[in-house]
Amino acid sequence: MTRGFDEIIKRVIQFRDERDWRQFHDPKNLAEAISVESGELLEKFLWIGSTESKQISDTKLRDVEEELADIAIFMFYLCDALNIDLLESVERKIRMNEKKYPIAKARGTSKKYTEL
Amino acid sequence: MTRGFDEIIKRVIQFRDERDWRQFHDPKNLAEAISVESGELLEKFLWIGSTESKQISDTKLRDVEEELADIAIFMFYLCDALNIDLLESVERKIRMNEKKYPIAKARGTSKKYTEL
Amino acid sequence: MTRGFDEIIKRVIQFRDERDWRQFHDPKNLAEAISVESGELLEKFLWIGSTESKQISDTKLRDVEEELADIAIFMFYLCDALNIDLLESVERKIRMNEKKYPIAKARGTSKKYTEL
Amino acid sequence: MTRGFDEIIKRVIQFRDERDWRQFHDPKNLAEAISVESGELLEKFLWIGSTESKQISDTKLRDVEEELADIAIFMFYLCDALNIDLLESVERKIRMNEKKYPIAKARGTSKKYTEL
Repeated sequence: MTRGFDEIIKRVIQFRDERDWRQFHDPKNLAEAISVESGELLEKFLWIGSTESKQISDTKLRDVEEELADIAIFMFYLCDALNIDLLESVERKIRMNEKKYPIAKARGTSKKYTEL
Repeated sequence: MTRGFDEIIKRVIQFRDERDWRQFHDPKNLAEAISVESGELLEKFLWIGSTESKQISDTKLRDVEEELADIAIFMFYLCDALNIDLLESVERKIRMNEKKYPIAKARGTSKKYTEL
Repeated sequence: MTRGFDEIIKRVIQFRDERDWRQFHDPKNLAEAISVESGELLEKFLWIGSTESKQISDTKLRDVEEELADIAIFMFYLCDALNIDLLESVERKIRMNEKKYPIAKARGTSKKYTEL
Repeated sequence: MTRGFDEIIKRVIQFRDERDWRQFHDPKNLAEAISVESGELLEKFLWIGSTESKQISDTKLRDVEEELADIAIFMFYLCDALNIDLLESVERKIRMNEKKYPIAKARGTSKKYTEL
């Protein structure tokens, strides 16, 4: 059974501290790690079409899950290093996006807010 | 007050659906979006040292929070598109990493598991 | 009229040295810069289809050219910092790829060499 | 002996055409490939310091050369797909940067032109 968000964070931090890895986890290196893992995630969708990417095999789905987990884990470490509350940041960003992308203007278009 | 994880996910999904953006959110494009945002996050730490990256200004900290939120939001959409439980994936990955990086061998070293 | 490869490299290096920027150009930061610029390049193709990406507007084409130039410039600096001959490296890599991807097996498929 | 720039491009294109791979090389996928390879390059410098990154082992240097070659090769394919003259783009970009970063203001600082 999956645990809650706070419990998962605790577990991820515990994993790090048991290995004494906090010393490597400065924000610069963690941002690099997130980029590296995002590249690995992207590789899973390279050379296939957008439609094809919706129907990937179970093996590829497991790979995607692993890469997503890697990104999430390094994000949790970065949040810990800089004292960031990730969920609060997401909430704040969604509120900003609601202003940038008012429903009436943004509905059904993938344009950037600067082009709306 | 910050809401729980499930509530945040619901809010992020609602934001998408009100704008009818699900049509753009195939996994290939979402993986691209995560990569793009990770690059923007990394840019905040470019040309500064690792130590310096621990003591960034409040303005930069806000920028970092925004980029992290962007990554998280696209991750939530990708999980939704592929029916992935992110927290469960993180939990599974941590269990895998515990085998790859046994405390006795991994303690205090940043070596990859293939080099331990 | 465009100058030759060696002349371009010289010009790019001169630009750096006139600004005394070599001090910032350690390999770690240059690799970050290449990743950041690659993200900006990728952003130009976000949310559009593969077919659409072949017929971009002139404005977008200029943007793509600029991002490619940025990547190339940081690659030249990284080669300079580590004493790498880029063209020689490309030649060597093509020879390696010819072994990894023999024509008979690789023709018409986008599979990775590990799956051929 | 290393060949000139134009000869290298020809060789790289020939490699592609012998395998009938042009069909996979739309700009969107090529931009993804460049991002993926940039992530692999960055991984070589992950968890090490900026100073350390100047003195990498011969083995790591070979790895870096390979990743740089991969990026260059996909850049050549993207230039071919969109009819871009890479060296001309670099020359144009350097001229733009000379205006954005006048020597008197930019000398010895890593600030972005928007902050100068």
